[in-house]
Amino acid sequence: MVEPAALRIAIVGVGLIGGSLARALKAAGAVREVVGVSRTRASLSKALELGVIDRGETRASEVGPVDVLVIATPVRAIPGVMRDFAPHLGSESVVTDVGSVKTWVCRAAGECLGEARSRFVPGHPIAGTERSGVEAAFPSLFEKRTVILTPDGGVSPSAVETVAGMWRQAGAEVLSMDPGRHDAILAATSHLPHMVAYTLVNTLAAHPQHEELFRLAAGGFYDFTRIASSDPVMWRDIALTNAGPLVDAMKKFRGGLDALIQALEAGDEDALHRTFSNAKQARDLGLAWKNGTR
Amino acid sequence: MVEPAALRIAIVGVGLIGGSLARALKAAGAVREVVGVSRTRASLSKALELGVIDRGETRASEVGPVDVLVIATPVRAIPGVMRDFAPHLGSESVVTDVGSVKTWVCRAAGECLGEARSRFVPGHPIAGTERSGVEAAFPSLFEKRTVILTPDGGVSPSAVETVAGMWRQAGAEVLSMDPGRHDAILAATSHLPHMVAYTLVNTLAAHPQHEELFRLAAGGFYDFTRIASSDPVMWRDIALTNAGPLVDAMKKFRGGLDALIQALEAGDEDALHRTFSNAKQARDLGLAWKNGTR
Repeated sequence: MVEPAALRIAIVGVGLIGGSLARALKAAGAVREVVGVSRTRASLSKALELGVIDRGETRASEVGPVDVLVIATPVRAIPGVMRDFAPHLGSESVVTDVGSVKTWVCRAAGECLGEARSRFVPGHPIAGTERSGVEAAFPSLFEKRTVILTPDGGVSPSAVETVAGMWRQAGAEVLSMDPGRHDAILAATSHLPHMVAYTLVNTLAAHPQHEELFRLAAGGFYDFTRIASSDPVMWRDIALTNAGPLVDAMKKFRGGLDALIQALEAGDEDALHRTFSNAKQARDLGLAWKNGTR
Repeated sequence: MVEPAALRIAIVGVGLIGGSLARALKAAGAVREVVGVSRTRASLSKALELGVIDRGETRASEVGPVDVLVIATPVRAIPGVMRDFAPHLGSESVVTDVGSVKTWVCRAAGECLGEARSRFVPGHPIAGTERSGVEAAFPSLFEKRTVILTPDGGVSPSAVETVAGMWRQAGAEVLSMDPGRHDAILAATSHLPHMVAYTLVNTLAAHPQHEELFRLAAGGFYDFTRIASSDPVMWRDIALTNAGPLVDAMKKFRGGLDALIQALEAGDEDALHRTFSNAKQARDLGLAWKNGTR
């Protein structure tokens, strides 16, 4: 395991997540050098200007030796980045990603990383905002957030420790699980809510008087649909690569919605009260679990 | 029209909305006396203790003369309150409500208010939080919020002015529209999002590993489902009394959800990107409209 303070890292995709990781590690004094990698010079210039990265490169061949390569691109760009970097990775270099989908990424690593596969530690920080881009990055994004790692049995324990140590330096708590389990959990807790928020906004947007609707919608509506302002490319990739578990979750949700429509059409006041009351209890209890007060 | 500063008002149901109205009017020096009315002494004692009301009564017959009677109970309790108060209202007393549904309430007023029907000004402040009860009340709840009044042609213009003046004193902007239009707009912008949030929480709660889901859900999930912690009785009443427009809105939403499921099952990346991208644009534009920056 490489001592965090000595880490030289490269981050491919210096957006909200990649940029915030760079800022967090710099703030913690945990890195020697952060190399930003992007296809376009423009986004590297901005990251350099903001002090998020120390050096910017557009090609894998020019990055040089790094302890950790962090792939922070939209999910479907990950295999290409793996292919580009595989020939240039040192024999000790650890590779990780921050994608919201893990089974698909693990399969890609097997196909694209060559011998570095055994030093690939799939990761997912459960953190973010609806904003994107390096301008939105901030060092405390991961503080007290959970990072899920999903390495399989073939991955080197020291590589896992390097990645876990890096995230702890960024302020996060780290836990490990099977990629399939990760994908099912995230489908329900994150991917489904995004699909629901996008659909809700589109339902209003399709209304003939949509301008009036958007003007009169309460603050609560905008809080509720905040996640519908998330980056469309990122979410297209998540939806496509976690389609199975996501469709399962969406169908369960649709079943609940249909039951609610039926209760409304039948004027079934007990069913309505039970539905709302169960949800309130579940959310209040869930929040208490989350906050550690239960 | 009664000058706001001279208003003597009674508020039936001293919860988040009724209590915040009382606090706002007191803060503005706009009332002579606020009488709280509730079936139970206990909730009146708390409101008295907190200084939200000046006097508490459990019966309409003991309230005495008031300029404005504000009915701030769950929607389906409104007709009973109207019946209780009708025989005790002075010939100048104005009646209003704060219910989230207006067509149903207007019909109830015709049946329950007798001659005071012509001084009934249906109202709905587009404001609230997920919390309920007088403890949650605060004086700035209505600041810069919209209050929609839906009086028909038979309502006395001076009664409308009294109610509009009261809300302006509480910091709100007032606009008028037809009750049916109100109900369709609110079905889409408020009632539908609540149904969606309740359903989403219940989808997770039904999962065998629901505790793990709730623990791992990101902060965004809890922001998103904040409105699912709203009062179940209040929402049962809203859903039942606005069932028609609400079911219409829910079916449109379900249509959008089905289309998204289909796009996922077909792996149609263009459709997915278009869906997410349209939603992002619509929400960003809607928020700009709302904030007056567009």
